[in-house]
Amino acid sequence: MLRGSERGMALPASPIRKLSSLAEETKKRGIHVYHLNIGQPDLPTPEEGIAAMHNLSRKVLEYSPSQGLESLRKRMTEYYREFGISLQPQNIIITCGGSEALLLSFFSCLDAGDEIIIPEPAYANYKTYALMAGVHVKPLVSKIETGFALPPISEFEKMITPRTKAILICNPNNPTGYTYSKEELLQIRDLVQKYHLYLFADEVYREFCYTKEPHFSAMNLTGIDEQVILIDSFSKRYSECGTRVGAIVSRNEDVLAWVLKFAQARLSPPLLGQLVAEASMSTPKSYLEKTYTEYISRRNLLIEGLNKIDGVYSPLPQGAFYTTARLPIDDCDKFCAWMLSDFSYNGQTVMMAPASGFYSNPEHGKQEVRIAYVLEKEELQKALVALEKGLQAYPGRLI
Amino acid sequence: MLRGSERGMALPASPIRKLSSLAEETKKRGIHVYHLNIGQPDLPTPEEGIAAMHNLSRKVLEYSPSQGLESLRKRMTEYYREFGISLQPQNIIITCGGSEALLLSFFSCLDAGDEIIIPEPAYANYKTYALMAGVHVKPLVSKIETGFALPPISEFEKMITPRTKAILICNPNNPTGYTYSKEELLQIRDLVQKYHLYLFADEVYREFCYTKEPHFSAMNLTGIDEQVILIDSFSKRYSECGTRVGAIVSRNEDVLAWVLKFAQARLSPPLLGQLVAEASMSTPKSYLEKTYTEYISRRNLLIEGLNKIDGVYSPLPQGAFYTTARLPIDDCDKFCAWMLSDFSYNGQTVMMAPASGFYSNPEHGKQEVRIAYVLEKEELQKALVALEKGLQAYPGRLI
Repeated sequence: MLRGSERGMALPASPIRKLSSLAEETKKRGIHVYHLNIGQPDLPTPEEGIAAMHNLSRKVLEYSPSQGLESLRKRMTEYYREFGISLQPQNIIITCGGSEALLLSFFSCLDAGDEIIIPEPAYANYKTYALMAGVHVKPLVSKIETGFALPPISEFEKMITPRTKAILICNPNNPTGYTYSKEELLQIRDLVQKYHLYLFADEVYREFCYTKEPHFSAMNLTGIDEQVILIDSFSKRYSECGTRVGAIVSRNEDVLAWVLKFAQARLSPPLLGQLVAEASMSTPKSYLEKTYTEYISRRNLLIEGLNKIDGVYSPLPQGAFYTTARLPIDDCDKFCAWMLSDFSYNGQTVMMAPASGFYSNPEHGKQEVRIAYVLEKEELQKALVALEKGLQAYPGRLI
Repeated sequence: MLRGSERGMALPASPIRKLSSLAEETKKRGIHVYHLNIGQPDLPTPEEGIAAMHNLSRKVLEYSPSQGLESLRKRMTEYYREFGISLQPQNIIITCGGSEALLLSFFSCLDAGDEIIIPEPAYANYKTYALMAGVHVKPLVSKIETGFALPPISEFEKMITPRTKAILICNPNNPTGYTYSKEELLQIRDLVQKYHLYLFADEVYREFCYTKEPHFSAMNLTGIDEQVILIDSFSKRYSECGTRVGAIVSRNEDVLAWVLKFAQARLSPPLLGQLVAEASMSTPKSYLEKTYTEYISRRNLLIEGLNKIDGVYSPLPQGAFYTTARLPIDDCDKFCAWMLSDFSYNGQTVMMAPASGFYSNPEHGKQEVRIAYVLEKEELQKALVALEKGLQAYPGRLI
């Protein structure tokens, strides 16, 4: 028999995919499933973005430049300026979503055998890109008791070895919704500077920051201009995940040159998505304000509701549209599957993401689930009821 | 100073990119540049594809499934059936262009240190994906004297080692336009079978096959069902390179499962491109017939014109929309640059792709260039004149 690659075979199948198959079966039985498992907002894409397709005047849908459309990159510099980040279009390389931004920046900056420190729980796909690049992920576990704040900087420092080449942070965070304080970021800055590391900063939830202060970007950190690599995306900001438009942003000319060589090999980022992204940026401020207000009220409803359920605890996240909550259960994978295959209340149940997948050591997340508040409040309310009833009935309930 | 990855630094910058910068300068001097260097057809995208955007009724441009839209994959099985290839939708995973199809299939099937045999001259980006996957490319050089026919199969066999895991063919070929005969494919089949190899078959130019016989796909080879991995793309067929929609097609369930795991990590292929691709497939047959006839007449004009120029030789390619021609020059890189920086005739010049980039050993392609016939005949005619005059004036001319 032909064998696949070691990495292909080693890669775990997505737990969400297994649950998705279960959910299909659940729906076939006529049970309504509240999808709290996904990062796909239910909010509409800006009308301006859709209109760019309705008014498409091109006759040939040809390659765009490998680094992305000049007009889009120029427009993005204006956008970043609003966050106090000064850039030129040549600091930006457009990618096929934030995913490709991770892939290309890992391949450009890191070698097989290098180490990257990532606070956990963390977005599970970082590990896949690290696997592809042959890079070792060194996890630093943050705890629900502290609201998933960054572990003390001394813990980071202890993990640094001669092979450590980068730290990756996701801010605001997926899956916890935690938003780093300026002080935390300054501490990371000092470490990155001291040990000459790259700082990969995944800030795709920049707009969803509920601290009442504007988002403080890693690009605003002084003294490490050459070291910060920003991973960005239009997906969440404008609810256009399917257009696949993201970006690598850097002030390091060498990094940009390396990334561009890989970017040339894949020819170009998606043209239509870029046209939508650029048009979306002209949506009135009210679009994002409405989104922002909506998420805050959903978050408040969700977190309050979760903490009212016996044995459940969730911190109040200050960003993104997720929370990672602790449930009184033996095993999140079993519980999430059970909710779909064995449980329903009034013909309804809930799909969530088991947090085990967000830790290198799945044991850390065994009593945790990620819940996305990407449904309307009325739906969220019903989902909370189904979750509460499910927890009461679950045979693997703790206590 | 911070260092990049060894692979990022090792990757050669695209020679075309350097030439493109030169061409920008040339244009600023008021000189018209005929772009014979690119694989972007000038022909219109099917109106049906564009109309899918004009009529877009979605309000949320959300993620599509990681394996691509079911309706598109279903429609593709009908398309393949016309070529005598029987498939189910689950045999197809949609990718972000043929580029991502290469990336994901390499990562799924090959490990660092594995060897892949690729006949040369070959599409330069295969090497980048091999570099990313840590795979060694073993080139087998075909010669212009035989019209770039496959070297004898015994030459392939000699190259096989215990680390050989795959053969990659591009049929019809970029950059030569060579189309493999059924006999050649059967010989490769025997070898693939004998040594339990994967056969990666890049067939993105399937529609552009001028042998008067229908294209014979690697998917039609019997006895190696589990071993063939088809790389496909909508880019060339429908002149929609910018939509970034390709596919991995396989009958091997394991391979599909490995690919899907990597595909899940990048979440989804571009949604809008998929909608355009699916709609493009309903374009009347006359669209492809017109394209086909146009390319044949362009090819005839180009090849006849080339062979009339003193010292120039081009075989008559039976596929794609390229030829690799031999010129009486010292060095194709120097010549292609000189044509842009130092030469013009009646305010016109020509940009071509140096063939050095299509060989692992650039010396093999030193007197060759790739010429794409992606311009109208009138333009091609003028480009030929400029090329002839350029060759007369070039200081590095041989003989």
